[in-house]
Amino acid sequence: MNPPAPAVDINSDLGEGFGSWRRGDDLAMLDIVSSANVACGFHAGDPMTMVQTCRAAVRRTVTVGAHVGYRDLVGFGRRFIDMTYDQLVPELLYQLGALDAVVRSVGGRVAYVKPHGALYHALERHPSQAAALIATVGLFDASLPVVGLAGSGWLEAAKDAGLNTVSEAFADRAYAPDGSLVPRGVPGAVLTDPDEIANRCVDMVQLGRVQTTAGNVIELDVDSICVHGDTPGAVKIAATVAKVLSDQGVTVRAFSRA
Amino acid sequence: MNPPAPAVDINSDLGEGFGSWRRGDDLAMLDIVSSANVACGFHAGDPMTMVQTCRAAVRRTVTVGAHVGYRDLVGFGRRFIDMTYDQLVPELLYQLGALDAVVRSVGGRVAYVKPHGALYHALERHPSQAAALIATVGLFDASLPVVGLAGSGWLEAAKDAGLNTVSEAFADRAYAPDGSLVPRGVPGAVLTDPDEIANRCVDMVQLGRVQTTAGNVIELDVDSICVHGDTPGAVKIAATVAKVLSDQGVTVRAFSRA
Amino acid sequence: MNPPAPAVDINSDLGEGFGSWRRGDDLAMLDIVSSANVACGFHAGDPMTMVQTCRAAVRRTVTVGAHVGYRDLVGFGRRFIDMTYDQLVPELLYQLGALDAVVRSVGGRVAYVKPHGALYHALERHPSQAAALIATVGLFDASLPVVGLAGSGWLEAAKDAGLNTVSEAFADRAYAPDGSLVPRGVPGAVLTDPDEIANRCVDMVQLGRVQTTAGNVIELDVDSICVHGDTPGAVKIAATVAKVLSDQGVTVRAFSRA
Amino acid sequence: MNPPAPAVDINSDLGEGFGSWRRGDDLAMLDIVSSANVACGFHAGDPMTMVQTCRAAVRRTVTVGAHVGYRDLVGFGRRFIDMTYDQLVPELLYQLGALDAVVRSVGGRVAYVKPHGALYHALERHPSQAAALIATVGLFDASLPVVGLAGSGWLEAAKDAGLNTVSEAFADRAYAPDGSLVPRGVPGAVLTDPDEIANRCVDMVQLGRVQTTAGNVIELDVDSICVHGDTPGAVKIAATVAKVLSDQGVTVRAFSRA
Repeated sequence: MNPPAPAVDINSDLGEGFGSWRRGDDLAMLDIVSSANVACGFHAGDPMTMVQTCRAAVRRTVTVGAHVGYRDLVGFGRRFIDMTYDQLVPELLYQLGALDAVVRSVGGRVAYVKPHGALYHALERHPSQAAALIATVGLFDASLPVVGLAGSGWLEAAKDAGLNTVSEAFADRAYAPDGSLVPRGVPGAVLTDPDEIANRCVDMVQLGRVQTTAGNVIELDVDSICVHGDTPGAVKIAATVAKVLSDQGVTVRAFSRA
Repeated sequence: MNPPAPAVDINSDLGEGFGSWRRGDDLAMLDIVSSANVACGFHAGDPMTMVQTCRAAVRRTVTVGAHVGYRDLVGFGRRFIDMTYDQLVPELLYQLGALDAVVRSVGGRVAYVKPHGALYHALERHPSQAAALIATVGLFDASLPVVGLAGSGWLEAAKDAGLNTVSEAFADRAYAPDGSLVPRGVPGAVLTDPDEIANRCVDMVQLGRVQTTAGNVIELDVDSICVHGDTPGAVKIAATVAKVLSDQGVTVRAFSRA
Repeated sequence: MNPPAPAVDINSDLGEGFGSWRRGDDLAMLDIVSSANVACGFHAGDPMTMVQTCRAAVRRTVTVGAHVGYRDLVGFGRRFIDMTYDQLVPELLYQLGALDAVVRSVGGRVAYVKPHGALYHALERHPSQAAALIATVGLFDASLPVVGLAGSGWLEAAKDAGLNTVSEAFADRAYAPDGSLVPRGVPGAVLTDPDEIANRCVDMVQLGRVQTTAGNVIELDVDSICVHGDTPGAVKIAATVAKVLSDQGVTVRAFSRA
Repeated sequence: MNPPAPAVDINSDLGEGFGSWRRGDDLAMLDIVSSANVACGFHAGDPMTMVQTCRAAVRRTVTVGAHVGYRDLVGFGRRFIDMTYDQLVPELLYQLGALDAVVRSVGGRVAYVKPHGALYHALERHPSQAAALIATVGLFDASLPVVGLAGSGWLEAAKDAGLNTVSEAFADRAYAPDGSLVPRGVPGAVLTDPDEIANRCVDMVQLGRVQTTAGNVIELDVDSICVHGDTPGAVKIAATVAKVLSDQGVTVRAFSRA
């Protein structure tokens, strides 16, 4: 008897425009990914953009997740803000509710939560902010999975709190020897060759491992692969990842129902 | 056999602070009113203030309504913004969802919708903005009542669209001969004597009428009385209105369940 | 003796990004135009973008003007906001001062003022907003020219108030029979053929006239031609306009010194 | 021969409203202080409030300083934001220029710079942010004094960079044994007795020392005393400080000319 065919989700940060400003080719990405992390208005994503992004996602049965971030449009949510637990919970709850009303209006629902940018990374170093995210999901809908970097300590805390957790790997980001991502500024931090990226994704899913910049191989438990939609060649990279995974017998499907 | 005892709702605009800024004595007002119009973050009301206001309302079984407005913190939502239907619907939906998540987290729900400030008045002169509000409530929860000035044309349009409508009168605002409110800048536009205001409210509810600045009496169909929480003597006025109504056998109760 | 060679300014709206969002190819446009209308942070243009845009302009000796607008990032300043004179003056003064500090830090200065978007058009229909702009320039630096649509009534008011005025024509916009611009939504409102646009500009400058959509010819007194930087083919259109004007003996030069 | 009569400045954070929100009794405070730290729109202080505050200050010949902060209205600039040097310089320059245009329009000028809230404290721990403030003042007007906590390391860096520095002490804040302020949350962090506060200020100015919470006395070099305008009893405290200093022969005067 054969083992079950492997499956993985592909997620991407979408709806990251604001007003008349756009970022990335969302429609092309929505034809590829299984999960759309939709910005909720604080780091990007005005309400009209949210409606348009959610409508396009729902039409393609792409699952919508809330991509929550710091209130920081000018910094695109990429700067740490030293917020307390009591400040952060309402800010996150507000974003979740806002996106939920939007996506329900077009026939979908918020199906998971993923932190954005500086908040994504802060959860690892600031336990009170991690606790705030975990508490917020519990308050809003404790059945919603939360997405974080494979191996994150805060994902363990989320699991301990009774939440479903989703471990993600980054298709195009170099990994440091300790399993963290090489910071964007460092040369070689971002991979650009579609085939190399796609083959690495196959290894991540089928073998549960990735090679680091030091040459050693680390183990990763990957439920979802994050592909970017706003870098040069992003659509081609994402399409290649999806195709190669499929060619290798990996099913691409959302971890949460739309 | 006696006629049923008359009843009326008392509503007030609450949660109108932002961040560290406060406006009015919300807790005192929540001890008086039956319905709280809670600001949703666009003209006032940051998420933490929203949580605090909703928690205090729910504890007192005061019904929470969404007080939606233009995105205009510096102008407190009091300046008309020439938005299209397609722009306004998402902006309103976003506010409704955000408040709903907040109030659900403290055990309540959004039980009605009331437009704020310049939007409140614009609905009368800008049919596309009225249509946007009506459509938004339909998209979010078509069972939610909408609150407007007694006699408003847009309330008729809302009724025609199948929404429940709530007609309100203003306790402390002078009425022009045509039933509109005397603009705030005009001398005498705002009444300040608690007893005079309270007695006028009794007439509004029991007789369905109010005297205008020209001396003529006009008919009003009043489901709710709006009292302000941020004017000098506001709490005393509201308390007097509630007491005198009760003394006259009028039951103060919300039009929508909490 | 020959008449003096004709000259005209070419201006463009630049620095219209916000944070990580970009709009148009500013550097390419700065190689073509003589005047840069730089967004001041209210409808677009965060401080870092302002610094970058001003630095690039100053390096090319392109004159910098303050492109002031309504406080409306999500609407890109394209929605009328019903502000009073007393509200608008400080909002405009703030933008002028902010840009001036930025451009002085890179060796330039604010050399003129041009209203943006909905404010640009509102000045024609709302005398109190026009008076606010005129008063603000008087308060900030009464020697600064103000730019408006050729034939605008508010430019006359500005002249009467003692300001220097600059009449501009739009290279790529169709003119209605009364000399106003055909609204963007109307088919044919925006011209796209570079040669047609360039030849029309030559006629505007050399003959002081333009043909309207009704076929009649109207007279225009044109000190500056506005070219867009954010439409498809914008850079090619602007370059063609500049080249054809030059080929026809028209000198392109700023109306205000950098 | 007698030594010169001692003198000191009294400064206060003013203009900290936003739109319709107010904070503290600015007019009463302006009758007491010699220097007004005016918020510049990022943590508080919309343009109209800035105009009103500056006009009232100039009428009383109170010196106006730019109270610059992080872009964080909802957090009142009290949360650290992890900005780079390249991000912070334009944000500060923008605020300086905006306030300067406002105060010049009412006949004054920006006469010094004081960081606000989380930025005030961050300068001590984040050298790149301190360098950004120092560089910004150099770019805007290198003759402007910068105000910081007496004993701050970043003030030394500012002095080394050629700036004039002003050391301030806090009238109503308890000092820790190391000379830092006891954090606001700690019991006893804020003094409330006007006479105790005033007498402490006299010692700070005449003897150059203050007693810490541990009982030891530390030396302080005090050019200015900061009094708060938004705490209970603030006006009475400030008035008492001014009166007692005067009674003890200390002249209250601004360190920078208006």
